[in-house]
Amino acid sequence: MDAIDLILSRRSVRAYTLESVTEEHVTLLLKAAMAAPTAINQKPWEFVVVTDPDVLARLRDHLIFGRYHAPCAIAVCGNRRLAHPANGWMYWEQDCSAATENMLIAAAGLRLGAVWIGVHPIPSVVKSVSSILNLPEEVVPLSIVYVGHPAESPEPRTQFDPRRVHWQQYEPRKPRARVKNPKRR
Amino acid sequence: MDAIDLILSRRSVRAYTLESVTEEHVTLLLKAAMAAPTAINQKPWEFVVVTDPDVLARLRDHLIFGRYHAPCAIAVCGNRRLAHPANGWMYWEQDCSAATENMLIAAAGLRLGAVWIGVHPIPSVVKSVSSILNLPEEVVPLSIVYVGHPAESPEPRTQFDPRRVHWQQYEPRKPRARVKNPKRR
Repeated sequence: MDAIDLILSRRSVRAYTLESVTEEHVTLLLKAAMAAPTAINQKPWEFVVVTDPDVLARLRDHLIFGRYHAPCAIAVCGNRRLAHPANGWMYWEQDCSAATENMLIAAAGLRLGAVWIGVHPIPSVVKSVSSILNLPEEVVPLSIVYVGHPAESPEPRTQFDPRRVHWQQYEPRKPRARVKNPKRR
Repeated sequence: MDAIDLILSRRSVRAYTLESVTEEHVTLLLKAAMAAPTAINQKPWEFVVVTDPDVLARLRDHLIFGRYHAPCAIAVCGNRRLAHPANGWMYWEQDCSAATENMLIAAAGLRLGAVWIGVHPIPSVVKSVSSILNLPEEVVPLSIVYVGHPAESPEPRTQFDPRRVHWQQYEPRKPRARVKNPKRR
């Protein structure tokens, strides 16, 4: 599969079979995650892999937008103590987002289904997840990636919209004009 | 190329030939960017593609960590007015980071070289880039992706570190122990 097709095939999959995810696959997902770029190469990330049904059930109970029955959940966390002392923590959210996205693309390539569940910056969700996963104060969960074997197959897609693309400089547009004539570029 | 190899082949490329990037390639990069997942599918992004040598020179002058001579720069921006009214703006940084990472992986697949230059949240850099690109107040530049034909070929790599991986729950470790016996596990 070429790179663009792979990226377009990454869709959020929220229904999974009962088949578990192998440790080999989990390791490949983590290799992909830790191949992401980070600001000043600080790599401020830590990962908690959950396959224990009791812990998964507790996560489901507390993730408002993540009540799906996946056999595996991988929490992507930033660790303040691993961030570069000079302002590195400013970038942890971007660094951990890139790692999360890499896992999702890798999952698509492995024919696994996955979905990104947001945790940070909703304080109540951060608190619940931190408690369930025993995270120390300096470790903040950014996201949870649910992974499993897909029981649904959304079609590949881009959401490319030429109106979001500007050349050389930004050109402000009137929102009303866009509604009146949606096909203009 | 398989997905994991592709993701590991994405390296930061900072030296480019004089060859320009075709509009077809730019469009593929943007299709990849806009295939990224966003919180509640809000897609709060806008992109400014710069190929004008004068604008590129002005960007170079103001990007402390981005003084590279690329034939193309793509600014990934969040637009507050495109974010979901109920707290959607909380996620723009994660959404635009996923879009940025998708572009970098797509570039690797197209045998282009690319690098992620951080803009947000350094106020002085945000201000300079916003001025150069004529961004209105509600549009915030997260990153600039330089793209070109590579004049250097960093080897594929992961930075996988098993000490960053926990199973079921986080296990705090003593940093000293890690230094004393780095080969444990």
